Amino acid sequence: MNPSYTRREFLATAAVGVTLATLNPETLSANPVQETTMTQTVPAAFAASHELKPLPFDSSKLDGFSEKLIRSHWESNYGGSVKALNIVKQRLAGLLDDANTPPFVYNDLKREHLLRTGSVVLHELYFGNLGGTGKPDQALGKILSEAFGSANAWEKEFKRMGAGLGGGSGWVMLGYNLHTGLLENYWQWDHAHAPSATLPILVMDMYEHSYQMDYGAAAPAYVDAFFRNIHWETVAVRLDKALKVRALLVAGAVR
Amino acid sequence: MNPSYTRREFLATAAVGVTLATLNPETLSANPVQETTMTQTVPAAFAASHELKPLPFDSSKLDGFSEKLIRSHWESNYGGSVKALNIVKQRLAGLLDDANTPPFVYNDLKREHLLRTGSVVLHELYFGNLGGTGKPDQALGKILSEAFGSANAWEKEFKRMGAGLGGGSGWVMLGYNLHTGLLENYWQWDHAHAPSATLPILVMDMYEHSYQMDYGAAAPAYVDAFFRNIHWETVAVRLDKALKVRALLVAGAVR
Amino acid sequence: MNPSYTRREFLATAAVGVTLATLNPETLSANPVQETTMTQTVPAAFAASHELKPLPFDSSKLDGFSEKLIRSHWESNYGGSVKALNIVKQRLAGLLDDANTPPFVYNDLKREHLLRTGSVVLHELYFGNLGGTGKPDQALGKILSEAFGSANAWEKEFKRMGAGLGGGSGWVMLGYNLHTGLLENYWQWDHAHAPSATLPILVMDMYEHSYQMDYGAAAPAYVDAFFRNIHWETVAVRLDKALKVRALLVAGAVR
Amino acid sequence: MNPSYTRREFLATAAVGVTLATLNPETLSANPVQETTMTQTVPAAFAASHELKPLPFDSSKLDGFSEKLIRSHWESNYGGSVKALNIVKQRLAGLLDDANTPPFVYNDLKREHLLRTGSVVLHELYFGNLGGTGKPDQALGKILSEAFGSANAWEKEFKRMGAGLGGGSGWVMLGYNLHTGLLENYWQWDHAHAPSATLPILVMDMYEHSYQMDYGAAAPAYVDAFFRNIHWETVAVRLDKALKVRALLVAGAVR
Repeated sequence: MNPSYTRREFLATAAVGVTLATLNPETLSANPVQETTMTQTVPAAFAASHELKPLPFDSSKLDGFSEKLIRSHWESNYGGSVKALNIVKQRLAGLLDDANTPPFVYNDLKREHLLRTGSVVLHELYFGNLGGTGKPDQALGKILSEAFGSANAWEKEFKRMGAGLGGGSGWVMLGYNLHTGLLENYWQWDHAHAPSATLPILVMDMYEHSYQMDYGAAAPAYVDAFFRNIHWETVAVRLDKALKVRALLVAGAVR
Repeated sequence: MNPSYTRREFLATAAVGVTLATLNPETLSANPVQETTMTQTVPAAFAASHELKPLPFDSSKLDGFSEKLIRSHWESNYGGSVKALNIVKQRLAGLLDDANTPPFVYNDLKREHLLRTGSVVLHELYFGNLGGTGKPDQALGKILSEAFGSANAWEKEFKRMGAGLGGGSGWVMLGYNLHTGLLENYWQWDHAHAPSATLPILVMDMYEHSYQMDYGAAAPAYVDAFFRNIHWETVAVRLDKALKVRALLVAGAVR
Repeated sequence: MNPSYTRREFLATAAVGVTLATLNPETLSANPVQETTMTQTVPAAFAASHELKPLPFDSSKLDGFSEKLIRSHWESNYGGSVKALNIVKQRLAGLLDDANTPPFVYNDLKREHLLRTGSVVLHELYFGNLGGTGKPDQALGKILSEAFGSANAWEKEFKRMGAGLGGGSGWVMLGYNLHTGLLENYWQWDHAHAPSATLPILVMDMYEHSYQMDYGAAAPAYVDAFFRNIHWETVAVRLDKALKVRALLVAGAVR
Repeated sequence: MNPSYTRREFLATAAVGVTLATLNPETLSANPVQETTMTQTVPAAFAASHELKPLPFDSSKLDGFSEKLIRSHWESNYGGSVKALNIVKQRLAGLLDDANTPPFVYNDLKREHLLRTGSVVLHELYFGNLGGTGKPDQALGKILSEAFGSANAWEKEFKRMGAGLGGGSGWVMLGYNLHTGLLENYWQWDHAHAPSATLPILVMDMYEHSYQMDYGAAAPAYVDAFFRNIHWETVAVRLDKALKVRALLVAGAVR
């Protein structure tokens, strides 16, 4: 692949910019200095450009989850984070040149930026790996087996980590670490925790909004229901891509 | 690229297994049950296989960093995390089948696993992007400019975030988010925080061991010194690769 | 008050010790070295001595909370933390003299100790300040007014903080800081966060297990229901005591 | 003691209010809406009233700490948090009635409020328990012995926790938990972590700014030096007061 082509592609897709006129005027009124620059474009890194991604399955058809819970999770928890992320980016754009904002106060918003980015990305991956049935195919099972000793050992650790996070917040992630080349299960305390340089392969939401409505405090029962609904084809494709990505990264590796 | 080839490559490299005979016998004595299985291999996800990566530059040649600080940072802080990560993995391997360990206690070690993985990965990337001089080349400058409005705007935010983390722990990361396709600066509170699904392009350690010895509490002076020593060629290669990875991921995207 | 008397009282009440014979033998089997010392007492700091405190109100009588939610919250979330805290203390007691446990692994359990201590203390205070009706009495209203400008300003900030924690974990605490002498509202991200040297006056649980079952994602509606059930007499007594405590501490203050 | 007297005392001392005229005009310019209310008083909970407390010892006279480190720690790290706390409170006061600030953004500042409050309180207690020599007196030793099995056991755990926090941030606290009546060692990850309802008796700063300048990465050597300089008389007085406070709280306990 041609690097300069890739760069052009990037410039064309990632940096389209968003005119402030498309942003919520109500919120903008809090940042009056911006109003005079309505025709300017906001660079991609600060653009409030995040949009809700629809559920890739029928919310009434999961085995062991009420439609009410899935709708509430998607609309209020995921949807709330999409809105919040856009608001945070607008505020960061407005404060970037404000010398009166001390760095540690600016960082309070950058923490929220990290938290909400994590929430948006992880929720999209979560709903993305739900809506299926069945089991891992043979190829996926073999990779899990090689990495964890057996597919059962992998599942056992993954579920145990879920049970341990019951009653609070967090995520369990099967991730492919692009730096170490290891396929591991990672514990995450909240949306802002994550393994560095890692592609998520299978993510399980352990925030209580994922299960309280249907399962109360019975987190392990939720974990079992989650497993009945994993979309294994998606998991397999993610892992296949991750392995290709790793091959690309180690070929002619940096320093 | 052939998926099945990639899978074979993965099986060959990532899951080689490590015999327990290679592990520190002193530490093993705490897990006597393991001693009878010395000939078994530990699967990759639990293998204490992490090794120190040498500095890619002469530690006495950085502009504005004493050799003492760089050696201490590499040997004690990075090196300490490599050792700690291996110990954590040995313990996880020993506890995986221990029904007496409640899930929340198992997770205490998985938190340490996340923390130490982050420390090892981020430190290797940090030393990897040090040891240079000069400035971003034109192509890199253009990408930064498209993403942040200008290369100056990017640098301003990155440095401000560093100043805001002075006096504590944390990292500032310029990262390419493989899920959203955005190039952004991310705030990290400690080694366990990170943006999900993101390739680090430039990382700056803000733990006080990165600067206290040479700069005391003057975090912004450290940040300036850090910038004088960035290895921009490495940063450019990482970004080039990240853009190729993104192209690979969005081609025939999942669901 | 006589210091030596107070010390005697402390020795009599806090350090009674618990024989290991009273502990769960199943869990003990994981620490075989302890089995030979069954007749020894465990010092208070490491004793698994925490017991469930009953609800101070009828769980079926709150306005806007189902009995099912309150029972689940008390039994599974609070009760789970009482059990977990006792397990953590047993393990700490067993590891205190184990030279094979590195300090950072020991600290993983001390983090759990902090987390579970916070959960037990805060839940007891939470249920303790529920089960009432009405409003703050005049004296309490006056103190809130002096500290926050008006009782309404206090309530506004407290509720806003609750709304901001919706969808995740955390606590809102009206606390009297014994070091600064300030009555303030404090934000807590999880059970392990808290203001230093502070007596909680009114605590509101914002973990989703406090409301998801009855209110779904509607955190502000839960906050309103919480306010309808505050036991203001308890709040007033706590504040009265806190003010007396502060007077005791500043009299002949240290250094 | 008379409750109404205590309340009057509180009103007189805690809620004096601060005119905005005394605040830094440069910072105020960021909140123009406030400028028209310069003669109003800010209620105590939002007043930028925190002032630097002088060191209670000669910074050149500690055994094993350079004057440079102590001055830097006091001026930049502690002093920086005092300033930051005042800025945060000004901003909170300005945003309390701002309907355009979403609750989660308001909470970003409340997190900073918690963090900086912790830093100010803990640093004052830290410097307060330094500057001494010798050992715990007999009475203190006896209490430690009753709570931990022996004074040596207490010291061993305290020091081990310090070693485990080396290379990062955090605090080790010997604290008297006013809710449980237990004297325990607590692990704190940063200034925002703390045990609920607990009076600090002895605090040890494990942020790297406490030792890097003199000890590099050798955290255990710092911990030993810290112990050589503990002001045990202060520790004893704090514990005496804590025991009296506990007696006051359990007498006629709430619900």
